[in-house]
Amino acid sequence: MGETVGSLGEFGLIDAVTARLPSGADVIVGPGDDAAVVSFADGRTVASTDVLVEGRHFRRDWSSALDVGHKAAAASLADVAAMGARATALLVGLGIPPDLPAQWALDLADGIREECELVGAVVVGGDVVRSERIVVSVTALGTLDGREPVLRSGAVVGDIVALAGRLGHAAAGLSVLSRGFRSPRKLVDAHRRPVPPYDAGPLAAQGGATSMIDVSDGLVADLTHVAVASGVVVLIESALLPVGDPLIDAAAAFTLDPLTWVLTGGEDHALAATFAADATLPAGFVRIGSVIDRGDQDATVLVDGRPHVGSGGHDHFR
Amino acid sequence: MGETVGSLGEFGLIDAVTARLPSGADVIVGPGDDAAVVSFADGRTVASTDVLVEGRHFRRDWSSALDVGHKAAAASLADVAAMGARATALLVGLGIPPDLPAQWALDLADGIREECELVGAVVVGGDVVRSERIVVSVTALGTLDGREPVLRSGAVVGDIVALAGRLGHAAAGLSVLSRGFRSPRKLVDAHRRPVPPYDAGPLAAQGGATSMIDVSDGLVADLTHVAVASGVVVLIESALLPVGDPLIDAAAAFTLDPLTWVLTGGEDHALAATFAADATLPAGFVRIGSVIDRGDQDATVLVDGRPHVGSGGHDHFR
Repeated sequence: MGETVGSLGEFGLIDAVTARLPSGADVIVGPGDDAAVVSFADGRTVASTDVLVEGRHFRRDWSSALDVGHKAAAASLADVAAMGARATALLVGLGIPPDLPAQWALDLADGIREECELVGAVVVGGDVVRSERIVVSVTALGTLDGREPVLRSGAVVGDIVALAGRLGHAAAGLSVLSRGFRSPRKLVDAHRRPVPPYDAGPLAAQGGATSMIDVSDGLVADLTHVAVASGVVVLIESALLPVGDPLIDAAAAFTLDPLTWVLTGGEDHALAATFAADATLPAGFVRIGSVIDRGDQDATVLVDGRPHVGSGGHDHFR
Repeated sequence: MGETVGSLGEFGLIDAVTARLPSGADVIVGPGDDAAVVSFADGRTVASTDVLVEGRHFRRDWSSALDVGHKAAAASLADVAAMGARATALLVGLGIPPDLPAQWALDLADGIREECELVGAVVVGGDVVRSERIVVSVTALGTLDGREPVLRSGAVVGDIVALAGRLGHAAAGLSVLSRGFRSPRKLVDAHRRPVPPYDAGPLAAQGGATSMIDVSDGLVADLTHVAVASGVVVLIESALLPVGDPLIDAAAAFTLDPLTWVLTGGEDHALAATFAADATLPAGFVRIGSVIDRGDQDATVLVDGRPHVGSGGHDHFR
């Protein structure tokens, strides 16, 4: 297809995208009307929006349209999982330039659809507008299936802190790409497409998680949100953190400490959760620390007993 | 406040915005966690996303941040109304440059909140990222309160076509601004802040509307969607269309036919609906035409018996 978004037109593009999207069991009204209507049997809807901007979250020379679709969907789907919920429906707001190849937009839609398939969600609606830089805004809707949501504010002194999923891989991949390399592939791919442990979210809720968060900005930054919301201090034991050979090798090549990526790298969408000390951790979770009393200290997250020095993660404006 | 978004930082901005937002009766978990949780008592959620981009949908020298907030919220709230539903919750994805005055972002949040108050909805979540051009993506969630959704596909031969709300005002206002004028104020304000007839959506559903659409692209374009989805032809009688003095005066000044704005202007978010011929039109609706059999003609919308010549409305890429 040699067409551009401009030659296909807004409604031609919407028709072509919509034709590639399956429907779902919970979808009462799908794409093509003023709004979608989705069934949520337990009377509650979990909803989260994430925005990806070209040049900030992805570059077209580093990631394919399929990659960007996967990554954009994953950011919102992981937020729903972090509530202990199961995503069922997505809405996609898309800003694209008119000279964009139409195939790029269709591949993006395929990437979003494929990522949705991992959790059984479907795209139910969206909007396409003209924008110089590509912007992808994804809203995920999910169901708690009758469970209570797992909040950031429920961590209790004495709890175990546990982690499901990878840390530091996306940040290391971005470092690799930024220095002009295209390998190690495992790290570069982690920047292109996160692999959130979606199933771990509902499993953690069923397993009695007292709090949970999607690690999107960095482990220290995100556990700080949990610590502050819960009024506790989170202790991270760095020896318990999953590091892995690709990170160690890349860090050695760049003469960096791989723990910097693991403690502060975002966009892997691991899930960090707290559980009672006597709980059996659900499949996929490993212990990485514990929850202690705030006492009279200022720090809310300690790494090996000391406050973390430097940025704990990503701030979009700093 | 002399601060910029950059000096305030992502989390400072989010805290400042969140502090200005009220909660709502249906909100189980509001802003500040990985996702919001909203109650939908009848087990169904209506959801729609609309994206506004600086330079395309608004200009900062023509619209205040408060205006942009109102306009961004209105686009999604009107979509929910067009299903016969009542919006209860909004999620806002925001892309902004770091040198933007923080006050601009706070005023935007105020505008969104004020528009939501018109229908009793509240902001429950969102995302803020860095973007050169301002992008506002709004997802509105709503409830049908047990009613069936009113689709685009339900128009039946013999139905009345009716309209609630204004047509052509936002397009005329944009024309006025584009020619360097700042008045007539009523038209310019219509570009800055639409006035969708939100209550007319649920009223139309209760009054037996067979189909309904939010007129966001232009009356001919949007009634074409209804006609195609329903497999009918829509007849518009131009003498029945609301025009009004501000449009007539501005059109005279520009030596234009005001009907061009009324038939093809978008962004006023009027609601067009069809009703059985013997129905009593709900408050706020006036008859503007009728539904006839498709027969062997190609046109799906006729104005005074003839196909409309030229574009029927806005295509973002053409």
